[in-house]
Amino acid sequence: MKNKILIIGTGALGGFYGALLAKAGAEVSVVCHSEYEYVKQYGININSSIFGKWTFTPSQVLQKPEDYSDTADFILLCTKVIPSLDRVALIKPVMKPETTLVFIQNGVEIEQELVLAYPEYEIISGLAYICCNRISKGHLLHSAYGRLTLGSLTDSATSKIENLITLFKASKLECFLVDNIIAERWKKCVWNAAFNPISVLSGGLLTLSILQSQESLVRQLMNEICLIASATGHQVSDDIIDLNIANTYAIDTYKTSMLEDFEHGRPMETEAILGNALLAAKKVGIDSPHLETVYRLMKLRELKLTLP
Amino acid sequence: MKNKILIIGTGALGGFYGALLAKAGAEVSVVCHSEYEYVKQYGININSSIFGKWTFTPSQVLQKPEDYSDTADFILLCTKVIPSLDRVALIKPVMKPETTLVFIQNGVEIEQELVLAYPEYEIISGLAYICCNRISKGHLLHSAYGRLTLGSLTDSATSKIENLITLFKASKLECFLVDNIIAERWKKCVWNAAFNPISVLSGGLLTLSILQSQESLVRQLMNEICLIASATGHQVSDDIIDLNIANTYAIDTYKTSMLEDFEHGRPMETEAILGNALLAAKKVGIDSPHLETVYRLMKLRELKLTLP
Repeated sequence: MKNKILIIGTGALGGFYGALLAKAGAEVSVVCHSEYEYVKQYGININSSIFGKWTFTPSQVLQKPEDYSDTADFILLCTKVIPSLDRVALIKPVMKPETTLVFIQNGVEIEQELVLAYPEYEIISGLAYICCNRISKGHLLHSAYGRLTLGSLTDSATSKIENLITLFKASKLECFLVDNIIAERWKKCVWNAAFNPISVLSGGLLTLSILQSQESLVRQLMNEICLIASATGHQVSDDIIDLNIANTYAIDTYKTSMLEDFEHGRPMETEAILGNALLAAKKVGIDSPHLETVYRLMKLRELKLTLP
Repeated sequence: MKNKILIIGTGALGGFYGALLAKAGAEVSVVCHSEYEYVKQYGININSSIFGKWTFTPSQVLQKPEDYSDTADFILLCTKVIPSLDRVALIKPVMKPETTLVFIQNGVEIEQELVLAYPEYEIISGLAYICCNRISKGHLLHSAYGRLTLGSLTDSATSKIENLITLFKASKLECFLVDNIIAERWKKCVWNAAFNPISVLSGGLLTLSILQSQESLVRQLMNEICLIASATGHQVSDDIIDLNIANTYAIDTYKTSMLEDFEHGRPMETEAILGNALLAAKKVGIDSPHLETVYRLMKLRELKLTLP
């Protein structure tokens, strides 16, 4: 029997992973917001540097989760994590006893909200390492990477996480199961907390320019995330900062996702990435003055966007 | 005999103070850059909320200092303090033995360069507390304040500083002589180092919005300037931060001069205000992480302006 999968938040990331799961044989439905009419008529067009070109025709195209009349084996929650979006309420109509929740989202300390709201459910936390952009209505460009890291937040994990990994692997995607997905989140945050806000506050610099001019600021921000991660019990490896710096030089001129959001007038994940890290720092009594400064400047940048 | 005064850097500030000195009876010449033709033909039109409206017709209007064939009793150096402008070289052609140099400029640690280059000269450091803007070619709007604080950097000060103060007072301007003008510079920097960069990095917020949303960041930046000032031997009074905050709430919605410069594509005094404060901090071994972060972000903001 086919796995039934419902994608909530069908942007670049949700659309791409959904398309891969459908390719692997799952019955994939999608909840679309602004592109509902287009996707319902034409599907989602994928242009991938790794997986080729094809059109993903979802099993069902829905305007909102409550329109899904079926029971999903997996819900893939792929929205951004922003204060104006209530993730718990969003998925409520489709959480059935058989359903496993998989959230593939950025940020740290974003799991508790879901775990507390759905204590009886199997919940999987996922991190996507991917360069994939929506280039026009219903058209995704997957330019590089793609790796997906998954980890269960449930003590008594079932074999369903293995099923999901098998599906992704069948589509030729690199997909890993990790023991400590929370530490993985902090590791990913090391890069995000530095480059994302700097790219916006600098007025739109790409990663290489940032590094060439102010590598030390990048390192200070990364170091503060490492200290918070470590103090909250999620030690990240010592060489992560050097590795991140070297990899970022290697990818040359990259535009961060937060800068993409900013330039398109979309809400930014300031709270999920910076605000939550600082809340965690406060709980354990750690001072993070560089992070705090960029966070507060980002709040002012967001405030400015709301003013006439 | 009339005092001969040459204004170098005839922007809003230089033009306004020059106009007052001419009103008080001095023979005031001006060096103009971009507005040379206009000012030569029409003079400088002043519209002041305190001193009324009049046209200031300079004694001589010059394109560059070396065109001044006379000997000035006072040179008023009123340019911005920016790395691309060599202040020492700029005034060299007009520094005569009889000349007293008065620089009315923002920033900290900006005096040594002049004192070292002109050790035989009487040098006066000045700070302007004024809201005055150039609104169109040759037209200045003086909207509020105006106070000028002067202090001699020369041990064997002559009576010339008193002459200058007498002139300013004759024009009804508030003009004070202070003992420690270097501490005054740090005091002024407390406000500037906080509000100027935040206004730019936030994308253009006015002072009231900044305060209402992120007063604590403002206080952290101000506090770091106070610590540097104190560590370098220029104790500022304990209540200066509270006073600055209260006064800024009182002036309501004010656009900083750095934001004005940024919006008009003019160079900003990032080094004079932030860079120099951080150099001073480094010399005395003080850590200023909030200031350092905004400084580095400002350097990136400046870098972005130079890129295509």
